[in-house]
Amino acid sequence: MTIIQDIESVVGEKGLITGKDVFNRKAGIWIDDGIRADAIVRPKDTLELSKVLAICNKNKQAVIPHGGLTGLAEGAITQQGQIAISSERLTAIEEVDEIGRTMTLQAGVPLEKAQEEAEKYNLMLPVDLGARGSCTVGGNISTNAGGNMVIKYGMMRDSVLGLEAVLADGQVMTSMNQMLKNNSGYDLKQLFIGTEGTLGYVTKAVLRLREKPKSTNTALLAIDSFDGVIKFLKFIDKGLGGSLSAYEVMWKNFYELITVTGSNHNPPLPCEHNYYVLIETSGADQEKDTGHFEHLLEQGLSNQIIKDAIIAQSESERSRLWAIRDDVEQHYQEGPVKMFDVSMPISEMENYVQEVNKRFAANWDDYKCVVFGHVGDGNLHVIGGIGSDNLKEIKIMESCIYEPLKPINGAVSAEHGIGLEKKNYLHISRSETEINLMKSLKKALDPNNILNPGKVFD
Amino acid sequence: MTIIQDIESVVGEKGLITGKDVFNRKAGIWIDDGIRADAIVRPKDTLELSKVLAICNKNKQAVIPHGGLTGLAEGAITQQGQIAISSERLTAIEEVDEIGRTMTLQAGVPLEKAQEEAEKYNLMLPVDLGARGSCTVGGNISTNAGGNMVIKYGMMRDSVLGLEAVLADGQVMTSMNQMLKNNSGYDLKQLFIGTEGTLGYVTKAVLRLREKPKSTNTALLAIDSFDGVIKFLKFIDKGLGGSLSAYEVMWKNFYELITVTGSNHNPPLPCEHNYYVLIETSGADQEKDTGHFEHLLEQGLSNQIIKDAIIAQSESERSRLWAIRDDVEQHYQEGPVKMFDVSMPISEMENYVQEVNKRFAANWDDYKCVVFGHVGDGNLHVIGGIGSDNLKEIKIMESCIYEPLKPINGAVSAEHGIGLEKKNYLHISRSETEINLMKSLKKALDPNNILNPGKVFD
Repeated sequence: MTIIQDIESVVGEKGLITGKDVFNRKAGIWIDDGIRADAIVRPKDTLELSKVLAICNKNKQAVIPHGGLTGLAEGAITQQGQIAISSERLTAIEEVDEIGRTMTLQAGVPLEKAQEEAEKYNLMLPVDLGARGSCTVGGNISTNAGGNMVIKYGMMRDSVLGLEAVLADGQVMTSMNQMLKNNSGYDLKQLFIGTEGTLGYVTKAVLRLREKPKSTNTALLAIDSFDGVIKFLKFIDKGLGGSLSAYEVMWKNFYELITVTGSNHNPPLPCEHNYYVLIETSGADQEKDTGHFEHLLEQGLSNQIIKDAIIAQSESERSRLWAIRDDVEQHYQEGPVKMFDVSMPISEMENYVQEVNKRFAANWDDYKCVVFGHVGDGNLHVIGGIGSDNLKEIKIMESCIYEPLKPINGAVSAEHGIGLEKKNYLHISRSETEINLMKSLKKALDPNNILNPGKVFD
Repeated sequence: MTIIQDIESVVGEKGLITGKDVFNRKAGIWIDDGIRADAIVRPKDTLELSKVLAICNKNKQAVIPHGGLTGLAEGAITQQGQIAISSERLTAIEEVDEIGRTMTLQAGVPLEKAQEEAEKYNLMLPVDLGARGSCTVGGNISTNAGGNMVIKYGMMRDSVLGLEAVLADGQVMTSMNQMLKNNSGYDLKQLFIGTEGTLGYVTKAVLRLREKPKSTNTALLAIDSFDGVIKFLKFIDKGLGGSLSAYEVMWKNFYELITVTGSNHNPPLPCEHNYYVLIETSGADQEKDTGHFEHLLEQGLSNQIIKDAIIAQSESERSRLWAIRDDVEQHYQEGPVKMFDVSMPISEMENYVQEVNKRFAANWDDYKCVVFGHVGDGNLHVIGGIGSDNLKEIKIMESCIYEPLKPINGAVSAEHGIGLEKKNYLHISRSETEINLMKSLKKALDPNNILNPGKVFD
C-alpha cells in the first residue's frame, strides 16, 4: 500500500483530497497560486490524526499543518512530495465554563466563531486580528498571534491555558489545564505555542476568557514628535490604570495615503501632523470612564503633547477611525510592496525608521517606506516599495529592514512568525546558541523531521 | 585535580565554600537543618558559572541551583555528593528602561530589591509574595512564582520578557528580549521558567514593569455560601473592568483561628460567616475608583450576596486586613501541620473541600483542615493537621488531599512547584505522555542529568 492508501484507510474518502482537487484549493487567502501537495488530509478527530501521523512518521513523510491559511510568513506553504493536514473538520466548541471563564474547543474553529461564542456568555476572547473570519484558533496558537489588544491582554500565548497536541510519532499529548495557576511540572503547552507546527499538531485548546468590558472609548490624536508619542503613551497608560487596550500609531505617510491621496476615507483630523495615534480603552463604566478619558486628553492638549484630537461619539464613528488604521490594503494599490513586521525597544523606534529610510534612499531614488504599528507593544509594520518585485532587489530591501535591528536587539518578526519567509534572517534576532537549542528541541520531539520541515530554520 | 579543585581554579577562594562551613548554612529559611553538599559554589558572573558547569558536566557531577532557599517544595534540597551553586553574588540590577518599562538584572537580586528599584521610577514589578525579602528573582523565575496579584498581572512567567541561562554543558544561552512581542523563532525562555532549575541555570533576566497604580481600594467581605463567593467574584471582576488585583478567600476556620481563638488580631468583622473575602483593586484615580468600588459593594450588600463588609479607610487599616490573610504561621502553633498548594476549576472548589474533609474524617477523629487561597486564580491552600508527623500518616493525609484532584483535573501544585516533595504525586495531575515528554526535554538539554537531578521527576 502507498502512504496515501494507508492514510485513506484511516480517514476514509471524506478525509482525503488528492489529484487536481488539491491544486484547485488556494495556497493561502493572500495567494493566487493553488496548493501543491500530494494530498490534503482532513482528519475528523484527534484519534484519526494520531493514526495519520504515526503512518507518516514511520514513512518519514513530511506533513504541513493547515489552519485557515491566513499566515503572512509562508508557514503553511506546501510542495509536491508533502502532505497537508487540514484542521477544517475539527470545528467543535466543546464547552464554555462561565464561572472559570474558559472555552474548550477544537483547533479548526475560526477565531471569529470563538469570539462570537464567548459573547453569548457576555465574555470575551481578547485576541483579535484582521483575518478573524478565516484564521483558526489552532493557527493562532501555532503562530502565537498578536493583534490589536496585546497591550492590555497579551498575545495568544496569554489566552491559552491548556492544549492537546499530536506529536510527530502520533502520540497524543493531552494537557488541557483549565486553571490560571498550575506549576505541576513543566508547562508543556509552551512547546506548541508559536512554534509554527514544527513540534506538534495542536488539536484542542482551553482558552482563557475575560469579562466583556462595559465601556469603550476611542480617539484619534495628532502628535508632532515621536518623543511626544512615547511621552503620551506613558502618561495615558499610567493615567488609565490598566484600561488602555490599543495604542496604534500611523506615521504621516500612512495617514496621508489613506485619508487624502487615494482613499474613500475622509480625514477626521487634518493631514498636517507627523504622527496619528489611534487610542482605545476598555473599562467598566461608560459615563465615568468617558469623563476620565476626556480629562486625560485635555491634559495632553493643554501641555501641548497632543496637537489635535477627535473622540469617537458613536460606534459608527469608532468604526470609521479603526477603518483608517485597518485599510492597509490601500498601500498595495500602487506597484509592488512588501509588509514587514518587526519589533524593538520603543526608545529605538525613531532612529530605526530614520535608518531604514536612509538605507532605502541610498539604494533607490524613488521608494515607499510607510510605517504604522502597535507602538505600545514595540511592534512596527513597515510597508516597503521599491517599484520592483525583482528578487535580488527585494533581498536588498529586506536587508535594509532587518540589518538595523541587530545592534538594537530588535526582532525580525514581532507577530507574524518566521515560516519560510524569514528563516534566512532569523540569525539577526537570535544567536547561534539559541538556534542550536531550537534545533535540539526539534530533534528531540520530531527526530524524523516530518512536521513542517524547513520552516523557521533548516 | 579533584572536581572541587578544578572549580576553585575558576571561582577562586571567594567563590567556594567547603567543609563544615557548608553545613553551617541553613538548608532553607523554613528548615532547621544545615546544607548537606560537597561544596557551595558562588560564581561571580555568568562566565565563571559557565566554566563551572562545563567542569561538572564533564565529570557528571550533580549540581543544585540555590537562590534564596525560600521554596516550599524541596526544590533546592542538596545531599552529600552534590554541589550547590548559589546565585548570591549575582546581585546587579543592570538597567531600568523607563520608556520600555523593563528591568534588566542578575538572578541573585532579591525580589524586594527589584520591587524597590522599580518604585524609584514610579513603576511596579507586579509579582509579590511573603518571602519577598529573601527569595531571588532567579528563584522566582525557576519556580514560576505566583503570589497575591496573579488575577490581574499573571504569574512570574508573565513578567519575564527575556533571560539568560547557562545550559548543562556550560553553553550560555542569551535570550534577553526586551519587547512585548517577539515571534522570531521558538520562545526559548519558557524552557527555564517553572522548570525548577532542571533544564538550565538562570543567570539574568529582562522583567516587564508596569505603571504603578495610582489608587488602591481594599475591603474585607463576609459571605455565607461558596456560591456567593463565586457569584461575587464574577460580579465584581466585571464591574471593575480589569482593576481587580486580589480576591483572597479565607474559610471560616482560618478566619476564626487568626482573629479569635489564638491571635493578636481583632476581628474586623464578627466571626459568624462561612467565608471571608479580602478584595483589592488597583486603578488610576483614588476618588473616582473609591466611589465606584463602594457602589459595587453596596450592590453586593443590597442583593444579599455580601452579608457584611468593611472597607479600609487608611493604609494602616489596609495593612491590618492583609495581616490577617498573611498570618499563616499562626496555624503552625498547635501541633504539626502541612500546607498544601492545589488548584482546580473554581466551580469544583466547594465539593473538593467537602471531599477532603470527608476523607480526613474517615481517617482521624481529630484533625485540622484549614482552607484559604487565591480563589480568583483557582488556587487553594489547605493546612492539614492530623496530630502526628509520622511519615506513614502524612502519606495518608497527602492522598486525602491529592487523590480527589484527579477526577476534576486539578493540580497538585498551583504555585509552589514539585521539587522532591510532590514528585510522587505528579502523575495525579499529568499523564504518562506528558511526563515522558518532560523527560525527553530533560534528556535533550541535560543528557548527563547533572542539573537538579531527581527533582520534579526521576
